Amino acid sequence: MLSRRTVCRVIYADTDNMGIAYYANYLKWFEIGRTEMLRSLGFSYKDIEAKGIFLPVSEAFCKYIFPARYDDILTIETTPDSSVKAGMKFDYAIFNQEDRLIAKGYTKHPFVNADGKVVRPPKFLTDLINILR
Amino acid sequence: MLSRRTVCRVIYADTDNMGIAYYANYLKWFEIGRTEMLRSLGFSYKDIEAKGIFLPVSEAFCKYIFPARYDDILTIETTPDSSVKAGMKFDYAIFNQEDRLIAKGYTKHPFVNADGKVVRPPKFLTDLINILR
Amino acid sequence: MLSRRTVCRVIYADTDNMGIAYYANYLKWFEIGRTEMLRSLGFSYKDIEAKGIFLPVSEAFCKYIFPARYDDILTIETTPDSSVKAGMKFDYAIFNQEDRLIAKGYTKHPFVNADGKVVRPPKFLTDLINILR
Amino acid sequence: MLSRRTVCRVIYADTDNMGIAYYANYLKWFEIGRTEMLRSLGFSYKDIEAKGIFLPVSEAFCKYIFPARYDDILTIETTPDSSVKAGMKFDYAIFNQEDRLIAKGYTKHPFVNADGKVVRPPKFLTDLINILR
Repeated sequence: MLSRRTVCRVIYADTDNMGIAYYANYLKWFEIGRTEMLRSLGFSYKDIEAKGIFLPVSEAFCKYIFPARYDDILTIETTPDSSVKAGMKFDYAIFNQEDRLIAKGYTKHPFVNADGKVVRPPKFLTDLINILR
Repeated sequence: MLSRRTVCRVIYADTDNMGIAYYANYLKWFEIGRTEMLRSLGFSYKDIEAKGIFLPVSEAFCKYIFPARYDDILTIETTPDSSVKAGMKFDYAIFNQEDRLIAKGYTKHPFVNADGKVVRPPKFLTDLINILR
Repeated sequence: MLSRRTVCRVIYADTDNMGIAYYANYLKWFEIGRTEMLRSLGFSYKDIEAKGIFLPVSEAFCKYIFPARYDDILTIETTPDSSVKAGMKFDYAIFNQEDRLIAKGYTKHPFVNADGKVVRPPKFLTDLINILR
Repeated sequence: MLSRRTVCRVIYADTDNMGIAYYANYLKWFEIGRTEMLRSLGFSYKDIEAKGIFLPVSEAFCKYIFPARYDDILTIETTPDSSVKAGMKFDYAIFNQEDRLIAKGYTKHPFVNADGKVVRPPKFLTDLINILR
């Protein structure tokens, strides 16, 4: 099973009044996870868009298990769900510097064109999908 | 079934490179929805925290149905899920100015004390929960 | 001197580890201030963009005088600086619910076209500028 | 003159409807710049707070010279302004992957205690200030 790990740090901007990371920021970390996974496979999401294909988010889920705190170093592990046939789905697990699982979740993405219409993936993307499977 | 509606506008800060609202911002709108629902019932979340009880998010889900765009006026409809026994769960539906459903989702919240330990809700909160049921 | 006031609330997402609003969020409130000022004069910034003119930010300044806290109700007072000849400049003052001045600052904006080139304002914008002066 | 460089990438969350990074995000990059500068000198801002001293922002300025775009790799160069006697001031310059200066600015910070009162810096901080001068 193909997984990729990328690291980022919790900054002050990410924290809230409770002294922990605000819950919406985990979705930003999910974005970093899937972008860096694609990049590690030679697919820059920017280049995918330059070819006229967009992967907006159609569904997002996050389970918050343990708080992320200011200055924590987070490891985002991203795994594509190869069982999904239409579009793409990524599973995420976030660990802190003590290797404790602090959150997990997923996002789903259809392939759409510049007009926002769902489309079949072009050849370069089916190549990517085949790598992920 | 008890529901409350509150309104907010999509600002430039909420949008992204695709010309639509970035997906993490919907969780901010969910926050506004549940906070204003509680306020409309006479419960300020700030006051709840001042009494030593916190409602962090343990789970969040959002289904993105139609894009929110810059300057859209969003109506966030929040409904407590009265079937939940431990903690609270809120369901959300977001509509744009054409009354089109653009997103729906939920958040779950345990009751915790200042040390982050899950606690039974004190009297003033069971009063609130009884209103919501 | 033309000034407009608009109101917004500090949400949990705006706060940080220090229990106060994170400093970058004031620039979002400045955005709300200038957008609502323009709207009150019959100029939606969205419509300005639809006519091919953009007002990116070329300079921003903020002096933080007193903390904004969770659930505060902020009043953003926006005043155009009529002495500026090229582009637009807005001055801001933010007050909390006790009418205490908590921040002041400004932003500067050139007029640019869709290619990002600085342009002279078209007629509909000189009309706006004349109202502001 | 003591300067430190740190690198970060523009993510989708940072961009806006104009296809460029939203102006408030530069203040987040300034935060990353000053935090990593302090860390490189052996001073974690988290540890400074743990000793009861906070450095909120009293003033922030940014001049936007060239747009930051999605997926850009930014280098944040942070330089302390040693002429400042009360509190700290940091100057920032942000460059993109083509080494083009895209923004510059500064932030000012008083030393305050947990009650928000301005205080003289304790010994460990005057040591830091002496390194920076």
